[in-house]
Amino acid sequence: MSGTDHQATSHPKFQELSKRLAEVSDLEMAGAVLYWDQHTGMPQGGAKARGEQLTTLRRLAHARFTSPEIGELLADLADLEKSLPYDGDAASLIRVTRRKYDRATRLDDKWVVAMSEASTAAYETWLKAREAKDFAVFRPALERIVDLSRQRAAALAGEDGGHPMDPLVDMREPGLTVATLQALFDQLRTALVPLVQAIAPKHDPAWAEPLQGRFDQDQQLAMGRAAARAIGFDLDQRGRQAISVHPFAISFAPDDTRITTRIIEGQLGPSFFAMLHEAGHGTYMQGIPDRLRRGTLHNGASAGLHESQSRLWENIVGRSRPFWRFFLPIAKAFFPSQLGGATEQDIYRAANVVRPSYIRVEADEVTYNLHIMIRHELEKEVFEGELAVADLPAAWNAKFAAYLGLTPPDDLLGVLQDIHWAMGFGASFESYTIGNVAGVALYQTALREHPGMHDEWERGDFRSLLSWMQENVHAHGAKFTPEELLTRATGAGLDAGPYLTYIKTKYGELYGV
Amino acid sequence: MSGTDHQATSHPKFQELSKRLAEVSDLEMAGAVLYWDQHTGMPQGGAKARGEQLTTLRRLAHARFTSPEIGELLADLADLEKSLPYDGDAASLIRVTRRKYDRATRLDDKWVVAMSEASTAAYETWLKAREAKDFAVFRPALERIVDLSRQRAAALAGEDGGHPMDPLVDMREPGLTVATLQALFDQLRTALVPLVQAIAPKHDPAWAEPLQGRFDQDQQLAMGRAAARAIGFDLDQRGRQAISVHPFAISFAPDDTRITTRIIEGQLGPSFFAMLHEAGHGTYMQGIPDRLRRGTLHNGASAGLHESQSRLWENIVGRSRPFWRFFLPIAKAFFPSQLGGATEQDIYRAANVVRPSYIRVEADEVTYNLHIMIRHELEKEVFEGELAVADLPAAWNAKFAAYLGLTPPDDLLGVLQDIHWAMGFGASFESYTIGNVAGVALYQTALREHPGMHDEWERGDFRSLLSWMQENVHAHGAKFTPEELLTRATGAGLDAGPYLTYIKTKYGELYGV
Repeated sequence: MSGTDHQATSHPKFQELSKRLAEVSDLEMAGAVLYWDQHTGMPQGGAKARGEQLTTLRRLAHARFTSPEIGELLADLADLEKSLPYDGDAASLIRVTRRKYDRATRLDDKWVVAMSEASTAAYETWLKAREAKDFAVFRPALERIVDLSRQRAAALAGEDGGHPMDPLVDMREPGLTVATLQALFDQLRTALVPLVQAIAPKHDPAWAEPLQGRFDQDQQLAMGRAAARAIGFDLDQRGRQAISVHPFAISFAPDDTRITTRIIEGQLGPSFFAMLHEAGHGTYMQGIPDRLRRGTLHNGASAGLHESQSRLWENIVGRSRPFWRFFLPIAKAFFPSQLGGATEQDIYRAANVVRPSYIRVEADEVTYNLHIMIRHELEKEVFEGELAVADLPAAWNAKFAAYLGLTPPDDLLGVLQDIHWAMGFGASFESYTIGNVAGVALYQTALREHPGMHDEWERGDFRSLLSWMQENVHAHGAKFTPEELLTRATGAGLDAGPYLTYIKTKYGELYGV
Repeated sequence: MSGTDHQATSHPKFQELSKRLAEVSDLEMAGAVLYWDQHTGMPQGGAKARGEQLTTLRRLAHARFTSPEIGELLADLADLEKSLPYDGDAASLIRVTRRKYDRATRLDDKWVVAMSEASTAAYETWLKAREAKDFAVFRPALERIVDLSRQRAAALAGEDGGHPMDPLVDMREPGLTVATLQALFDQLRTALVPLVQAIAPKHDPAWAEPLQGRFDQDQQLAMGRAAARAIGFDLDQRGRQAISVHPFAISFAPDDTRITTRIIEGQLGPSFFAMLHEAGHGTYMQGIPDRLRRGTLHNGASAGLHESQSRLWENIVGRSRPFWRFFLPIAKAFFPSQLGGATEQDIYRAANVVRPSYIRVEADEVTYNLHIMIRHELEKEVFEGELAVADLPAAWNAKFAAYLGLTPPDDLLGVLQDIHWAMGFGASFESYTIGNVAGVALYQTALREHPGMHDEWERGDFRSLLSWMQENVHAHGAKFTPEELLTRATGAGLDAGPYLTYIKTKYGELYGV
């Protein structure tokens, strides 16, 4: 704590605010433990009671966070906040808490209940629509979600106009707007669509083969854990790993961070890179300073910044040549018969096949952002009233053909593929692209400061990169907005430039385009 | 719900009470999930945050349960309660909630904090004392615990006098008193001390050998799970099992009940019988009707009644001849080289060796209650002012010599062996004996109603016994006191008669005494 922070920590109202936020945070973390258990250990019979327990925890946490007392404390602390340095812990806690409080108190309980019910119904309907491969089944439920999401956006809207979807962007990526994102996607579209087209004729199906075959589950898990440990995710004293249907990372404290894995026996790639991805999230969670625990600063800066760390380790490191110089001998030790004859170049190619495909979660580094762009544009058009929910499948397929050169054969491989819209509509996907772009910008800055980094990676030493991220990203918790954090760390705000250079260089070399 | 219960469930104040209790119960169950994770999966680094999270959950649950609103609702519902049948869900909920409320509101927050701090300190000191094998190290911390336990007893004492330890007995075993327990232990002492003396010269060290050797951990686990499933504990749809340092059973809902196991590789007995023990607790938890969830009736009748179920499956079933007729071929399949040559008689003898020993948790069915009796008598004398804490080791050793014919060589094998006194002093152990005694009484009644039960066990069919327990014990949740429940189920209250008959018959036959 700096001297000026002492001014805050000795202030009775600041102490009272901290105490109340600690309680809310404990309730949220308890909910996170219940969620983890629900997805990694709970028997089927526990579902009903678990739902009730989670609802109670969330309701209490929400009620105690949105209490008038917190509002009064925030008002009373406004002068203190102004007297403190903007980037200190205390001013940041007050500032971030105020932003969250304003947001949380603008939606009444009726909306919260309606959204909760609509989501549950939409999720069930989405599953049925997927079975029928028919968007029409999902449509009425999605219309309800869109309606409630519009209400949310309207309730959160500021005085100063802006795009109707802006409040939802701001909710996930504080400070960003539809206009910023549009500029970003314009940069990406211009560069990526022609690149994908240039690569297409070079496609060679044989490239993917080294990572296909039969790979024992336990060995895959052990190999994934070896990689997670190697990049610096602490799986032993400060972390754990378990199996779940959908991989995720979750934290109950920086020193208690968990990741999950799903194993696909017929392929080595998906589970391995997913584990690096979750371990990447995990390094962010483990990197939050313990003093920011129990408040509103213990998360990352935004969903997008969190994704910058997972994509960094999954893609920029995990799909790089220096990484495989280090890791291929280890991988061969786990799978001698399958990988024994593979060269570095074989694995590097297999890990970096570029191929337009229907499903976002299976997309490669180059096409991934086009998948996101399609969703962003569709959501934006719906919010602008330019597109009806009923017309989403046709619009989806048209954009897919335009950007990726493919037409989804059915809604399951198209507009029905993501769960996100059952939970809310608007600004649902952009964080992935922000993560891709921000991850490269951060990495390039770290590389300039540690030019020998790739040699270190070849020796299995990732400490320079991890330390840089810890100091420049993780150490700040949720104190800064994405733009603030990126500007502090890289000297520039969100910009696709470094990302496009990275992509063009890497894939230009690989595919000779 | 019966017609008269509808009278309650449509009553707004009853609805309000139910709603508030559901919330408290959800918080308690959430705490249970955190506890489970803490002992089965949490990395070391998570300890500090987990302690804070659990404290917050417990504090909130306590605060919301002891709120004046609950007190007012209970007062307002007194007339309704009188108009309802005593054994119905609604009257029982009001009655049991009132008992818990009165108890919880009699101790102020200052005491709760003091006890919490004293326990934490006493636990640390107890560990140190064990290392030093010296009770004197533990003595000051224990004196503090005794002092606070006296304060608790005084605060909970009724108007009508009674033994100073009575309120603590009542806290764990509602309705029972020191006088009742004294009568029980008198019965036991008179019969068991001579029986142990009669068996002593017959001891043959070779009896224990079949269950000693090297037994692979995973195979032990798999065999324990097979036995738990066989007796009817649902490990799949409604339960789970994990590893922990100290075995325990815990439930977040009847349909989500968990047990833990600790494996000792050099012996087959301890882990196996401990797993049956925890699975026995688990059947009680899984047997609570779902409609009693989320209130104050979802526990068992008392700690002792809970123990009746675990000891039933561990000892009465698990150490019986018919069980081993069924299970020995299965055990041989898991451990062909170790058990291949063993006969039923070999295993039956090995599972039922009677031998005075220092450590309670390793004691056999015959000597176990003498271990408890020693503790009960010492606690009672301390509460009566007849014995000083400083004199506990000498008094312990004297009683040990008198009842078990052994003198502990040091405090580690004597007065320092149990963790219980670090948590509280008084009525800490009697529930184990109540469990042994009640378990046999319940089993004998079930056997009278299903005289062919032992033949069923030989075929691996335990449904008659389990169903009887479900109907006569589990189905009632916490509605009745131990005496009420035993009287309803067996026609008599707590009495050592059936237990002594069982012990004398079984061990008379086995040892020819």
